[in-house]
Amino acid sequence: MVKKFSTPRGTNDIYPPQALLWQELETQARRVFVRYGYNEIRTPIFEESELFVRSVGQTSDIVQKQMLHLSPQGATRAQGGAGLQLSLRPEGTAPIVRAYIQDNMDKKEQLSKLFYIGAMFRGERPQKGRLRQFHQIGVEAIGPDSCSPYLDAEVIGLCLEFLKNIQVPMYQLKLNTLGTVEDKQNLSKKLRQQLKPFKSELCPDCQNRFDRNVFRILDCKQKACRQIVAKLKLDYTHLCEASREYYRKVKECLDSLNIRFEEDPGMVRGLDYYTQTVFEVCSPALGSQDALGAGGRYDNLVAQLGGPQADAVGFALGLERILLAREEPQTPSGQSLDVFLVSLDEPSLAGNFKLAQTLRQQDIVVDMSFKPASVKSQMRTANKKKARFVVIVGQEEQRQGIVTLKDMQGGHQQQIAVDHCEQAIKRILNK
Amino acid sequence: MVKKFSTPRGTNDIYPPQALLWQELETQARRVFVRYGYNEIRTPIFEESELFVRSVGQTSDIVQKQMLHLSPQGATRAQGGAGLQLSLRPEGTAPIVRAYIQDNMDKKEQLSKLFYIGAMFRGERPQKGRLRQFHQIGVEAIGPDSCSPYLDAEVIGLCLEFLKNIQVPMYQLKLNTLGTVEDKQNLSKKLRQQLKPFKSELCPDCQNRFDRNVFRILDCKQKACRQIVAKLKLDYTHLCEASREYYRKVKECLDSLNIRFEEDPGMVRGLDYYTQTVFEVCSPALGSQDALGAGGRYDNLVAQLGGPQADAVGFALGLERILLAREEPQTPSGQSLDVFLVSLDEPSLAGNFKLAQTLRQQDIVVDMSFKPASVKSQMRTANKKKARFVVIVGQEEQRQGIVTLKDMQGGHQQQIAVDHCEQAIKRILNK
Repeated sequence: MVKKFSTPRGTNDIYPPQALLWQELETQARRVFVRYGYNEIRTPIFEESELFVRSVGQTSDIVQKQMLHLSPQGATRAQGGAGLQLSLRPEGTAPIVRAYIQDNMDKKEQLSKLFYIGAMFRGERPQKGRLRQFHQIGVEAIGPDSCSPYLDAEVIGLCLEFLKNIQVPMYQLKLNTLGTVEDKQNLSKKLRQQLKPFKSELCPDCQNRFDRNVFRILDCKQKACRQIVAKLKLDYTHLCEASREYYRKVKECLDSLNIRFEEDPGMVRGLDYYTQTVFEVCSPALGSQDALGAGGRYDNLVAQLGGPQADAVGFALGLERILLAREEPQTPSGQSLDVFLVSLDEPSLAGNFKLAQTLRQQDIVVDMSFKPASVKSQMRTANKKKARFVVIVGQEEQRQGIVTLKDMQGGHQQQIAVDHCEQAIKRILNK
Repeated sequence: MVKKFSTPRGTNDIYPPQALLWQELETQARRVFVRYGYNEIRTPIFEESELFVRSVGQTSDIVQKQMLHLSPQGATRAQGGAGLQLSLRPEGTAPIVRAYIQDNMDKKEQLSKLFYIGAMFRGERPQKGRLRQFHQIGVEAIGPDSCSPYLDAEVIGLCLEFLKNIQVPMYQLKLNTLGTVEDKQNLSKKLRQQLKPFKSELCPDCQNRFDRNVFRILDCKQKACRQIVAKLKLDYTHLCEASREYYRKVKECLDSLNIRFEEDPGMVRGLDYYTQTVFEVCSPALGSQDALGAGGRYDNLVAQLGGPQADAVGFALGLERILLAREEPQTPSGQSLDVFLVSLDEPSLAGNFKLAQTLRQQDIVVDMSFKPASVKSQMRTANKKKARFVVIVGQEEQRQGIVTLKDMQGGHQQQIAVDHCEQAIKRILNK
């Protein structure tokens, strides 16, 4: 018995009819994002691990538990001996910021509006909506002095516009602000004060987080921690006047676009780099893992990674989540075939092979069987492939220069000259 | 001084104007392949390492020297503890065959026509046209009893049709046949007989290959080995009658499509799984690494990987190679902007922000600056972004419900009602 191989756990194949849905999402994303002035960028599948440690944060779940590293041998091969640790990218923002800095984009334009579509990787326990290889569509607007409430609202509006365009039936926008780095420190202090009496009741992970990164406690999935977190009194008193005014203005801009949102002062996001505005888009169709995507402002990350002073805001949406959230995941029946070419006998195969190429060069989608098979079996294949037309040709027809053209929609059948066949098909198909 | 990060060696960022070229290649590939009845499939970035050992071959350079593995820790995370070795995929055929078997495609259709577009990974020494993350477009036709010279010619024709469509200026088709597994064994014997007198002059790698896999000697890049290989007498006498007839028929089919080819009996390809027809498409524009892509028939691979008896033929093209081979790599100037919205004063920003959204929802590509800036500086940005129109609005215009619409091509400028602006722009843009 020969061993059979399967997709590694937490990864999926995307088979043909499904792949059409993916193509459609990607095409729509490109169409919508371009309308807002965003351009596509592509970065490598793996990066130096330290890039993520320094951006996402040493204490984040991603860095602590979920990074997929290349083996030292693999990393050495991939670097020619430099010995750096490399990881499959767990998220898209840090690589884009790395690319922004590496290409000196701040010297070329005041504001770089970028988007990406690609695979991300996390060593998570697979469950509905959580995969080890998953796919994100994301947007990042980065530039010197680009900290504007209008830009935050533009990015949020763009995100929702895309979801509307691809017919995600329901979604909900949750909004919060973290304020500046100083405001975040005030919030940390406030959280520690409130959590201190319950510290011993927190899970061991959260007891560690208490000193190292108290925000992470708010995201903890443990029941005990969640009960404690639920009782916290969170408000916006830790914000400085400027942060409050900024947040007020963001909400005003969203109102002006008729975008409804729900404020959630407990939403801090699992990544360290966020400042000011953060948001999450959820779908009630998704159950407990209900986030379609999330984003926010990260005004310090570019400088923190060795780049110039540049503000930034962005988001990422999960493609698998989006596909789950679309109420009726219409599985398309596959690419439709214009013509299936039926050979009445084996000697006609050579001529039909040439005819197929001729039609294809006229942008007609053609398939045929090269295996000698009965006409009945070929017609069955044509039906299964949902061919719009069947073109039937044998030796005798080839000698006379004619073909039988059958319209599979109306069932109408006619004999026409082979030279007219291409025109007749194109006319009916409107090509 | 904060550390700056770079792309890992042998990997590249694809920045916005360049990404448009990639999008174009992918769109064209999808268009051409679909016309031939091929459908897209997507498989994970990493697979069990053993899949490649068992398909590409234990003695191949890919398996011996080039695979990028996940770290045991990463692999454990990616498998939930199963402890299998995982590798970034070095090529696309083995994963497609794995998916074909896993999905029982042979039960669903006689012939599965699949294509893929994606990143591949090899730990090679980077040089022109060789990267550690590179990208391939590939086609695989797999099915029971699908061993047909017509299918070989269709696949080759499809490959060349795609290259013609994307304007690769010159390419050359090299053709060979390896015959059946038994024919290949005859060829091995013949090669060993001829090479034996020179065995001690071969490089140490090739001396190993002599017994383990003598075909690999034909691909060796060492000068000494190449000189010995050049003197070999290669012909088709190792082929059985059926293989000879099959090859003759493939050439006849190619002739019928007016496809020119050059026979090269020394071309064996670096992968173990090929049988019968093999081919390579080269471009003189590429220098020493001149292959744009290659392919061939692999009638035993599906069964060898635990699947049903199914024949198969396919190819893969390198996207980076294709981009290099296109004579004038037209770098597009970036996505073109329909409208840049200029705000005459700060109070008009809020209204203009809404106007931008309204226009975008009408499929007009709009950008604007949220940073208070002089009209001169905003016009400069509009020019830089090659905006077709500039729409100029201040507080006074908003009060009157008008805008100034400037056509940047003719320079013509007019004041119109804001409500007519969208229609006027769409009319001129033909949207």
